[in-house]
Amino acid sequence: MQEGQVRPGNVLKVDCFLNHQLDVDLLDKVGEEFYRIFKDDGINKILTIEASGIAIACMTARHFNVPVVFAKKAKSKNIDGEVYTSTVHSYTYGRDYDITLSKKFLSPSDKVLILDDFLANGKAMKGLLDVCAQAGATVGGIGICIEKGFQPGGAELRAAGYKLASLAIVDTMTDDQLTFREQ
Amino acid sequence: MQEGQVRPGNVLKVDCFLNHQLDVDLLDKVGEEFYRIFKDDGINKILTIEASGIAIACMTARHFNVPVVFAKKAKSKNIDGEVYTSTVHSYTYGRDYDITLSKKFLSPSDKVLILDDFLANGKAMKGLLDVCAQAGATVGGIGICIEKGFQPGGAELRAAGYKLASLAIVDTMTDDQLTFREQ
Repeated sequence: MQEGQVRPGNVLKVDCFLNHQLDVDLLDKVGEEFYRIFKDDGINKILTIEASGIAIACMTARHFNVPVVFAKKAKSKNIDGEVYTSTVHSYTYGRDYDITLSKKFLSPSDKVLILDDFLANGKAMKGLLDVCAQAGATVGGIGICIEKGFQPGGAELRAAGYKLASLAIVDTMTDDQLTFREQ
Repeated sequence: MQEGQVRPGNVLKVDCFLNHQLDVDLLDKVGEEFYRIFKDDGINKILTIEASGIAIACMTARHFNVPVVFAKKAKSKNIDGEVYTSTVHSYTYGRDYDITLSKKFLSPSDKVLILDDFLANGKAMKGLLDVCAQAGATVGGIGICIEKGFQPGGAELRAAGYKLASLAIVDTMTDDQLTFREQ
């Protein structure tokens, strides 16, 4: 409420604490809260997507004492061998991109908590869910820092039966006001 | 020594703990060690570059109780206003790219610890140092997880007078052996 800034095109700018500069003390509290919500769900791995998700995933993984694995957005020559891939449309960057994840890091024995900073249309999340399906991994939960409640991603995931926890859900955004959903 | 794999083109693959899957317990120990080395250097901000650096930076920032800021590799429409930019050549990705950092997150009042997973030719580090110079920020130290001691980046930074700590320095790499420098 104090630091978020609304910009044209439904952009909510939170770069002073969540996705450019990182308030690590806040992220630790975010991690504590995800642990409180998902601690009984048998999570043995945290999955996220570069770049901003990595900070949230690491600060949460400390509480679960499980490894993090992050999907990559660009193909590097360092990724060799077999990979899962899925195509994602990014509204932020205005283009499609492929995400990749090495097959050795996700398998049917994994029960995954998927974490990300934002959920809006849910395109990146669908890519991560697709990767989990390809791996035969179970999705134990989805944790989001900020959901844009006026865009369809969250409602679709809840309708599909996922245990989705969004720490803040923004229902309306105007130039000078954010309204959060009561939870 | 146990998990690193040598690949053609001087690639040292450590993706099972450092830059694809993340061993968060190890990263916490990495953070403790950087804190031990740099705790008396007046650091008030940790600077890194997406993506792998973010995990190391967050797990280190906990010990310093300072914010992290990470340079971005792609221009997003979420970054507006004034930014510092610098051009970096990536050997891993085989191309040049621009890094950007919002001016509001780095200023002459900052004394920065720069962290990254790898140091080889030092091209990304030069980009980060250039950004610090543009900002008028002081570089209090540079912390690296794995330095390739047979490539020139580390020697150049030490010759330039930076306080550089590399937790592991690989002096030689062959298909079946890594030799680490005594420190």
